[in-house]
Amino acid sequence: MPTLVMKFGGTSVATLDRIRRAAKRVGREVANGYDVIVIVSAMSGKTNELVGWVEETSPLFDAREYDAVVSSGEQVTAGLMALTLQEMDVPARSWAGWQVPLKTNSAHASARIEEIPTDNINAKFGEGMKVAVVAGFQGISPEGRITTLGRGGSDTTAVAFAAAFGAERCDIYTDVDGVYTTDPRITSKARKLDKIAFEEMLELASLGAKVLQTRSVELAMRYGVRLRVLSSFEDNDDNAGTLVCAEEEIMESNVVAGVAFSRDEAKMTLLSVADRPGIAAAIFGPLADASVNVDMIVQNISEDGRTDMTFSLPVNQIARAEQAMAAAQASGEINFSELVTDSDVAKISVVGIGMRSHAGVASQMFEALRDEGINIKVITTSEIKISVLIDRKYMELAVQALHDTFGLEKSA
Amino acid sequence: MPTLVMKFGGTSVATLDRIRRAAKRVGREVANGYDVIVIVSAMSGKTNELVGWVEETSPLFDAREYDAVVSSGEQVTAGLMALTLQEMDVPARSWAGWQVPLKTNSAHASARIEEIPTDNINAKFGEGMKVAVVAGFQGISPEGRITTLGRGGSDTTAVAFAAAFGAERCDIYTDVDGVYTTDPRITSKARKLDKIAFEEMLELASLGAKVLQTRSVELAMRYGVRLRVLSSFEDNDDNAGTLVCAEEEIMESNVVAGVAFSRDEAKMTLLSVADRPGIAAAIFGPLADASVNVDMIVQNISEDGRTDMTFSLPVNQIARAEQAMAAAQASGEINFSELVTDSDVAKISVVGIGMRSHAGVASQMFEALRDEGINIKVITTSEIKISVLIDRKYMELAVQALHDTFGLEKSA
Repeated sequence: MPTLVMKFGGTSVATLDRIRRAAKRVGREVANGYDVIVIVSAMSGKTNELVGWVEETSPLFDAREYDAVVSSGEQVTAGLMALTLQEMDVPARSWAGWQVPLKTNSAHASARIEEIPTDNINAKFGEGMKVAVVAGFQGISPEGRITTLGRGGSDTTAVAFAAAFGAERCDIYTDVDGVYTTDPRITSKARKLDKIAFEEMLELASLGAKVLQTRSVELAMRYGVRLRVLSSFEDNDDNAGTLVCAEEEIMESNVVAGVAFSRDEAKMTLLSVADRPGIAAAIFGPLADASVNVDMIVQNISEDGRTDMTFSLPVNQIARAEQAMAAAQASGEINFSELVTDSDVAKISVVGIGMRSHAGVASQMFEALRDEGINIKVITTSEIKISVLIDRKYMELAVQALHDTFGLEKSA
Repeated sequence: MPTLVMKFGGTSVATLDRIRRAAKRVGREVANGYDVIVIVSAMSGKTNELVGWVEETSPLFDAREYDAVVSSGEQVTAGLMALTLQEMDVPARSWAGWQVPLKTNSAHASARIEEIPTDNINAKFGEGMKVAVVAGFQGISPEGRITTLGRGGSDTTAVAFAAAFGAERCDIYTDVDGVYTTDPRITSKARKLDKIAFEEMLELASLGAKVLQTRSVELAMRYGVRLRVLSSFEDNDDNAGTLVCAEEEIMESNVVAGVAFSRDEAKMTLLSVADRPGIAAAIFGPLADASVNVDMIVQNISEDGRTDMTFSLPVNQIARAEQAMAAAQASGEINFSELVTDSDVAKISVVGIGMRSHAGVASQMFEALRDEGINIKVITTSEIKISVLIDRKYMELAVQALHDTFGLEKSA
């Protein structure tokens, strides 16, 4: 039997009624001939309640006890989903992470998956079980204690199961119906993509398209797991949602797949830094130590042994960054004349694997922004992405202009 | 180190604040030099919520999934209790039933404990852990699935741990401050007992004193586990609560320890039953098959080969019992002239191990009831108990009269 993994997030299993609707989708795939592995999150709100109790009890909690408490939410949903399927005469049973066992390392609250043995669940499939309902987000440490996988853990669980069982596909049911060329709240021309390459999805995920956690997409790419993102609140036909897959599977595509943006960016410039070997390390080491997430970095041409160093960072980390730079200046690690902060910038990125074979995307982007009178403050590029920092007030305008320029309202 | 088991019921861990108060008691026992095993129930209301979800999802539920869902409540409390103790600098960790592992049979939702290996927990005590917090009410089946122990499961878990670890005592913290000579709502003369023998407690528990489940008392008696029942809502000194122990430990006691009662009783009489060998089986077999809990049974003297058979049963099982009797009559299994039901009776019992060595308790009881003009409908006796059925309207009067007669307001 071909195997399918189906993952339902918290909003998709928030009530008994929604669990029933999810179970019906599972039942349909069983009728289509699949052995199904269902990965469930906790009913929405439950994990937050449990985390709240832990944090109120012990602000600097023992992560092993945190995991014991917080993992219980998924266990409940898994049991209820199995019961719902049984009521529909679909042979099903639930598995807590430790029962599979999904083996992780001992990094409690953010454990990494090490192994998913398939024998227990496959034995049950062999006995006629059609659906294994697995509590997402959790596993067991070498010490025999419950671990949780941290942010995006249920998506990651789903992808890991799909890889371990060689599933035909991993369907992620969520509260949006797919991945869009850009945020539909910015332009009504935003179009749902039928397919997107892993690499593109990775760039979009890390740029703020909240559909899939970066970690699960990375895992899917590494193991070639075809991921489908689709809504659990709509009736889906076979081509519903967005398929995240290897680029070989995408016959034709636009040069640019999507326009991503990030609103809460800041730009910081160290003026007239003494330019010497190791100066970058001397600046960005202290920033990393202060947990500042530096993104784009630009170094100007050096004149008279001094240079300007510009970088972007999240707006809410400005104070930490300024403190770290002042301390480094005071200790003599670095030497600059002035630190200039611009807290009113946004980042706009165009992403597309087609950029590898198409020249001129960058100049097309810069011209479109120029035509709107938008000044570019910082530019960085990668093989499949061009990002710019601009004044935040132009963000929506820039997204719309780029969406038009690259013809994203139409598919290839 | 001597070991102490402390069990906290649902109301004693209903909120984070109450968990903190319970943890303080645990901390005091650690300071007294004990290694402590804490058994916790789910926060009150949680188990009902989970059971409600299961029953709404699947009225005839798979008990294995029921157990997976319902056991999660205790897991949460165990983690929170361990975190609370750690915050108080008491080295503690939590254990789910399957982690101990508390091994049970496969009778899901009402499993029986088969074995509690002590090595895992003792190893941690050896490493300096002072408190093992164990999720009550649950274990693991030979098939590796979570089981729950059914009604009174957390008390039973506590007693079983006390037996397995050779604990000095098993303290059951609950919402009453001990076992009383009778229900204080019936007479203000009711007195808390300092000690009570296992056998007496068993009779009182099964007669409706809701403090301890029969099952846990039976287990305590079998393994000689000294049980202390006390309130988690009051400050307790060393002699707080009621100690349930072997009768050898009770130096002096009243002949009668307490007066129990059960309000919702009914009496049923089959008139003029053909008296032949096997007639009792022919009557009580069908009643058992219909899940009627027959308690007292009285057979009158046989005349002309016919007799009257009287028995008591819970009031809400009358319809089932009448149906079963009618069916047995129709099939020719039994033959009676009439079935008379009295649904307005109560059962009063006096219980005391002193009755073994003191004659005349029965006649003293009957005289006290006669003096109040109370007619006795049925009498049964055991070695340490005398029970009577009377009109329900005299129940309170009878309890008060007997409490006075046997001088229960004063200790021996």
